[in-house]
Amino acid sequence: MTNVLVLHPGAMGGVVATDLTRAGHQPHWVSANRSPATVERADQAGAVGHDDLASAIAACAVVLSICPPDNALEVAGEVAEAARATGASPLFVDANAIAPLSARAIADTVATSGCPVVDGGIVGPPPLTEGTTRLYLSGERADDIAEIFRGAHTEAVILNGEVGAASALKMTYAAWTKGSSALLLTIAAAARAHGVEDALGAEWDRSQPELGTRLRRSAAGSAPKAWRWKGEMEEIAATMIEKGLPAGFHLASAETWRRLAEFKDQSPPPELETVLDRHLEG
Amino acid sequence: MTNVLVLHPGAMGGVVATDLTRAGHQPHWVSANRSPATVERADQAGAVGHDDLASAIAACAVVLSICPPDNALEVAGEVAEAARATGASPLFVDANAIAPLSARAIADTVATSGCPVVDGGIVGPPPLTEGTTRLYLSGERADDIAEIFRGAHTEAVILNGEVGAASALKMTYAAWTKGSSALLLTIAAAARAHGVEDALGAEWDRSQPELGTRLRRSAAGSAPKAWRWKGEMEEIAATMIEKGLPAGFHLASAETWRRLAEFKDQSPPPELETVLDRHLEG
Repeated sequence: MTNVLVLHPGAMGGVVATDLTRAGHQPHWVSANRSPATVERADQAGAVGHDDLASAIAACAVVLSICPPDNALEVAGEVAEAARATGASPLFVDANAIAPLSARAIADTVATSGCPVVDGGIVGPPPLTEGTTRLYLSGERADDIAEIFRGAHTEAVILNGEVGAASALKMTYAAWTKGSSALLLTIAAAARAHGVEDALGAEWDRSQPELGTRLRRSAAGSAPKAWRWKGEMEEIAATMIEKGLPAGFHLASAETWRRLAEFKDQSPPPELETVLDRHLEG
Repeated sequence: MTNVLVLHPGAMGGVVATDLTRAGHQPHWVSANRSPATVERADQAGAVGHDDLASAIAACAVVLSICPPDNALEVAGEVAEAARATGASPLFVDANAIAPLSARAIADTVATSGCPVVDGGIVGPPPLTEGTTRLYLSGERADDIAEIFRGAHTEAVILNGEVGAASALKMTYAAWTKGSSALLLTIAAAARAHGVEDALGAEWDRSQPELGTRLRRSAAGSAPKAWRWKGEMEEIAATMIEKGLPAGFHLASAETWRRLAEFKDQSPPPELETVLDRHLEG
């Protein structure tokens, strides 16, 4: 039984915390400044609450960072500071959707506090059932983290390579799923603005029969989550730039999701036409 | 029987010229400065050759411009000049992969010579068989062009709207087919450069089972044609910009195809790995 601090029990982290209990471990969390929804998810996961990060770190052998990509470096910095202050040195796992160079920067930051670091990347939805979700891991201590997920719905997959490999896998995976959705929505918005929306739909029905359904699914599935995808797209752009590849696909995707951020968590999701009109507003 | 000048009988235009004979019409062409391959295609189509544009225009009631997008405005300008010089006023059809604003600029140019103009956009491969290829048409005289293709393999589809609508249809259609191919190749190149190519392929096999096949098909199908797609992607970017939509997807696509231009007409096509390595060279 390992005590695992989950930073933070959001839509993904909360379900991962529950998944850790399934595998026989004890999740912990830090309650300061978290939303009522996070409190509820932490309770459902049976997580032990802490008022501050220092006491949580002192109690845990593993720290799992699962947060929006924009916050990943901040969370890592706070963990490093708390580890230095308490003398604890938990194994730190960054499981966020960040570029390999961001993952290496985080590993460098955390290493200054004496904590070992593992790079992680989650592919798939929150692990409510078995077989849907992989946690890719890289770095020297990847085995230790894979061991913790034995018996969980989340399947740990160890990659060859140092810190950065797991993040690269996550980035290139999301580059298609979220990048192609942004492309499709942008094309549909262009067709609408140029007055050929119906004609394009009819042509797609003949020669690209999956695209009409895919477009409607993209709008409904993406719009409520768009608010947290802009940062991820910028991390993917950085992943491209590091290797001299064109970043424009994902900078344009970031702009697309930025425009749709107002549909945050909307249920039921907005209609396709509403999404396209919002995109066209700029 | 209508005399139709085809500018020029390239990979697409040559097959369209043959298709016009199938519908009972007489194609014409201008032989000055054309390649031996074009000469052969014109001969196969039974096209009447002319030494210069002026005599060709004097002989034809319809001029069909089918050329790389970078040349579309130049061809239109030459036609306008020849029409003015000869006093002829054939019906001019721009069937190129250009932005609506480029189509309108061309229409304005040609209209100064007194020629009526129809906007066209071809979706599908060269019309070697029935049912594969549509010629979208817009503008006042679109009906007259549709009439000419009665009995051809090419299916004429008239769109509501002025000059620009047919181009918008073509642009938004190609925005997905060629843009998503460029995106996929760029992602695969990133995975290769970051050392996670095999892991990404394995994850795709599990959760995106069509992507591996699609990637190999993209490389083989795109690389030999990439040399003429850069300009088309730039026209799509202009189509986006006109409506305030992000242009980055297609500027990045243009950069992708520029890098692969050296595989021009290569048969058999290069291996996927060769294509990705070329992309990574910049």
